[in-house]
Amino acid sequence: MISAHALPTLPPAADLAGIAVFALSGALLAAQLRQTFVTMVFFALVTGVGGGTVRDLLIGAPVFWVRDPWVAPVCLTTALVAWFTPTRWWEGRFLEWADAVGLAAYAVIGSAKALAWGVEPVPAWMMGVITGCVGGIIRDVLAGRPSILMRPELYVTAAALSAAVCIGGTVAGLPGALVWPLAAFAGFALRGAALARGIALPGYRG
Amino acid sequence: MISAHALPTLPPAADLAGIAVFALSGALLAAQLRQTFVTMVFFALVTGVGGGTVRDLLIGAPVFWVRDPWVAPVCLTTALVAWFTPTRWWEGRFLEWADAVGLAAYAVIGSAKALAWGVEPVPAWMMGVITGCVGGIIRDVLAGRPSILMRPELYVTAAALSAAVCIGGTVAGLPGALVWPLAAFAGFALRGAALARGIALPGYRG
Amino acid sequence: MISAHALPTLPPAADLAGIAVFALSGALLAAQLRQTFVTMVFFALVTGVGGGTVRDLLIGAPVFWVRDPWVAPVCLTTALVAWFTPTRWWEGRFLEWADAVGLAAYAVIGSAKALAWGVEPVPAWMMGVITGCVGGIIRDVLAGRPSILMRPELYVTAAALSAAVCIGGTVAGLPGALVWPLAAFAGFALRGAALARGIALPGYRG
Repeated sequence: MISAHALPTLPPAADLAGIAVFALSGALLAAQLRQTFVTMVFFALVTGVGGGTVRDLLIGAPVFWVRDPWVAPVCLTTALVAWFTPTRWWEGRFLEWADAVGLAAYAVIGSAKALAWGVEPVPAWMMGVITGCVGGIIRDVLAGRPSILMRPELYVTAAALSAAVCIGGTVAGLPGALVWPLAAFAGFALRGAALARGIALPGYRG
Repeated sequence: MISAHALPTLPPAADLAGIAVFALSGALLAAQLRQTFVTMVFFALVTGVGGGTVRDLLIGAPVFWVRDPWVAPVCLTTALVAWFTPTRWWEGRFLEWADAVGLAAYAVIGSAKALAWGVEPVPAWMMGVITGCVGGIIRDVLAGRPSILMRPELYVTAAALSAAVCIGGTVAGLPGALVWPLAAFAGFALRGAALARGIALPGYRG
Repeated sequence: MISAHALPTLPPAADLAGIAVFALSGALLAAQLRQTFVTMVFFALVTGVGGGTVRDLLIGAPVFWVRDPWVAPVCLTTALVAWFTPTRWWEGRFLEWADAVGLAAYAVIGSAKALAWGVEPVPAWMMGVITGCVGGIIRDVLAGRPSILMRPELYVTAAALSAAVCIGGTVAGLPGALVWPLAAFAGFALRGAALARGIALPGYRG
């Protein structure tokens, strides 16, 4: 099942930090909606691990957080922090930029993991997009609000760029140490441009 | 994959009765919405088996109802009963109390099954909550109405209490014959207090 | 895991054509909603492969499109076609009739695949319904509009008829070459009658 492709791994602390950023965005949405602490934990978990969970189910890998002793407690702790701090600490741009880093990093990790499990390039590209975006989409569907998928912002597109660079470079035989940082940077730069200048994709005009 | 933890099993009739109660709550929502019989079957199935299905997918167990000859027919029969009886037979408090029993029982079964499959304690606790609550959440999302997750009622919290007592007692090495009934009773008592006195959790106040 | 039941396979071109029809219905919904190209690809993929994906996860089979080199590119190409053509090319009845063919064909394929994987008859029947309908349901939930599941049209019912004939005939020991076309025709005829004459199921009247 495992092919010869290598798998990028974040240092464990960076990986957990990335999950915590996603989890925080879920917990803060629950706070905005004036929800209870239990709901906040649920949103933190779904947003933090949702994308990677769907990827692992699709490629047939064991779901990454179920047998990990740290990921679920990190989501729980994030919800605790969100509950006991004023939301204005987290408002503004810090969280959006942290989320942009996470989006690009997880799009690369997700597509590289899919390649490493022997998935074909086009589906592996889609796995990268899913890893970066699906947690936020499930969060928005549960909250009953229009998901990032339905907004013209360059969000899903940034994940798609990172995953495409990762797949393209790997298939071309370039070393991971070169491809992975480059791929993550490309998606982060695009998402950053969208945040800084409000760039959006055009909608269908018929 | 299977650890040394034991697995609580309900007597088969009690297990099917629990699934039928959840399935009935799905079928009755379809009836309230004046849906067709086919939709009613779909809702009965999703609500009856949704939580356990998500748990089994996450922990990598075979999905419990797919190879079982009884569970799917029970959901189908429940939908038939709901279709041919007036909804007022089922309105009022009977169904809520039956659902409270099912919620507590399935939170215990779900967390104990996850432990038995070698899942770490914190994710196993979350598997208990998922087993008890996710069927109803999917049902509400499909119906386009705010899910129990977004209401302040002590519902998800009751499942969380049952699962926590189950995990805590098992990790402490207490025998299942003591822990499981105690855990189920704790969650049922909390849910019962919420039903009898309208207790709710506080929302986030910033 | 694999039982003695045979598995119907469409000729590869017909199979990809069926996926493309479902994917096109997803892409066109994104076009109607004036979404971006990236969203259109996401909708094409989810609608094209969603039902079969859920079926494969439930029965424990490898997800059919993840290791296939053609399915994901077909969904991508379909989205490109939808983006660069005026929607009026696709409006009107052509797409509805193509969708009716796909619905009946995939209900048969899904239930036969479940039987071939050793699933019991009643759950296998439900797998057929899921394969035909769930892609469209996820598409509608993501778009935030009432799904086909909540409309009285004979849609889910047509899939249920095809799957039931397929299961019934196979369990009765009839040869697949006879059962599969008959089952697909039955569901297609029912869906066609609904399209041609606006037949709908009655809703629950209490």
